[in-house]
Amino acid sequence: MMLKKSPDAALPAMAFAVSRLDRMANARSDDAWIAALRAETRARCVLFDGDKAALSAAGGLALAASVPGDALFLGIDDDGQAWFAAQGPHEGAKSDLRSLAVSGALPAAQLGLLAQARSLLHWHERHRYCAHCGAATHAKDAGYKRVCPSCRAEHFPRTDPVVIIAVRRSNSLLLGRQASWPAGMYSTLAGFMEPGETIEDAARREVKEESGIEVGAIGIAANQPWPFPSSLMIGLIGEALTERITIDTKEIEDARWFSFADIEAMRRGVHGDGFKIPPAMAIAHRLILRALQES
Amino acid sequence: MMLKKSPDAALPAMAFAVSRLDRMANARSDDAWIAALRAETRARCVLFDGDKAALSAAGGLALAASVPGDALFLGIDDDGQAWFAAQGPHEGAKSDLRSLAVSGALPAAQLGLLAQARSLLHWHERHRYCAHCGAATHAKDAGYKRVCPSCRAEHFPRTDPVVIIAVRRSNSLLLGRQASWPAGMYSTLAGFMEPGETIEDAARREVKEESGIEVGAIGIAANQPWPFPSSLMIGLIGEALTERITIDTKEIEDARWFSFADIEAMRRGVHGDGFKIPPAMAIAHRLILRALQES
Repeated sequence: MMLKKSPDAALPAMAFAVSRLDRMANARSDDAWIAALRAETRARCVLFDGDKAALSAAGGLALAASVPGDALFLGIDDDGQAWFAAQGPHEGAKSDLRSLAVSGALPAAQLGLLAQARSLLHWHERHRYCAHCGAATHAKDAGYKRVCPSCRAEHFPRTDPVVIIAVRRSNSLLLGRQASWPAGMYSTLAGFMEPGETIEDAARREVKEESGIEVGAIGIAANQPWPFPSSLMIGLIGEALTERITIDTKEIEDARWFSFADIEAMRRGVHGDGFKIPPAMAIAHRLILRALQES
Repeated sequence: MMLKKSPDAALPAMAFAVSRLDRMANARSDDAWIAALRAETRARCVLFDGDKAALSAAGGLALAASVPGDALFLGIDDDGQAWFAAQGPHEGAKSDLRSLAVSGALPAAQLGLLAQARSLLHWHERHRYCAHCGAATHAKDAGYKRVCPSCRAEHFPRTDPVVIIAVRRSNSLLLGRQASWPAGMYSTLAGFMEPGETIEDAARREVKEESGIEVGAIGIAANQPWPFPSSLMIGLIGEALTERITIDTKEIEDARWFSFADIEAMRRGVHGDGFKIPPAMAIAHRLILRALQES
């Protein structure tokens, strides 16, 4: 096994995968400490209006004038500044994280902290009640827990593992598309993991369900936080054992084998039929390039 | 990258990692089809009494006489038999899954389906209410979803990714222990992933928090479903950049560097101080052996 020092510099950067904050996980349950950080004049607070991050007129992050009392703690940066996140209306410019990631307008570490913020804020928004007894819960530990005053249950933010896989057969790759995607876009097959599955079994199951293809040899190649709202994308490369595709139309609209030449044209945006692959910021893009490089 | 055909045969088998059922994920939302499977005389239903699996007098699985109407669907085995899982009192023998895994009494594929069953049953037990609005929810899709009749929210079973890592420095490994563990047991450090983290960042963060050690080069080495109640263990091997340990006593009782000779004695159960490592069924055992083999 090859251990890696740092992300592959030879491949385009994936969005949301760079985080520079020290989350101070063992200190953030100290309410007095968090309150003191909030009150510091150099504390920073990013704002979300729904699922959109607030931006300045110049296109950078728009920060709150002060840190609201219910802001979630993100961590402390290299300069010792504390970062928080809060939800609220914002009159100025704003953008969803996918568009921000594609545009490349923000530094990688800022996209990373926005991903952390968005997943956490969304979790609180959707989990105000106790799933165990139905009572209203309240946030604790600067936003990393919700506690039920009635049954005492503790609830923690979700991180949902998703398998996403580039399946190879001689000089072609299996890619599919959902009806809701931009015209011509094809990507690697993906799906949520289920209870009691290994990563490899989940990937084989998803490919079989969606395309009918059986996958043999397989390996994990990359991973990416994906804040829509709280997935962890676990990327694999696998070798197909079969060739004939049977599409499950409940999940995807189409799936087909693309030759490496086709894919190179899709990557460069010059495919004759207008087909394309996902942008460089997505793990699918990286998996496709790696599957080609390593074949 | 090396793609793998099948799990490492040279290493002891990890529990819960073998699943032979076809989960039929795209068919199980068909209530009539599930009802017909339930009514089949050859349908099988495993039983849990709390967190303990029901066993026969001979130590095998005790199956229900018939499949209850609220049983969860697990999948279809190679012989075409449908498997279900239900919760209820059981007068006979029973055992928690950890003990069953350590004993090796059941075939690997049966442990796998018990893991799937236990995670799903536990999720339903703890998620009877809508986290979004507090109303009582009901199960759908043979147990793979809960739906809120009030706000229409859909809820899916949790799978919580946990990073667990063997940290190496020249010829020693960093292992720690929690106060609640059996005397003398030391294992690899571990912790839940958080929103917006990569797997590698989460592993480095946990090691830093618990032991003060900085980790440099790192790689994913194995994974294991861990049904206590619904974790996915993602195992890594990493190289330490520092040596001096600072223990976070809120999380662990002790952490220290063990020489490879120490660890070999711990594995064989002959360490002079009575120290030991986790049993072969656990991913920690595998990570420790792999870290030694590959150094």
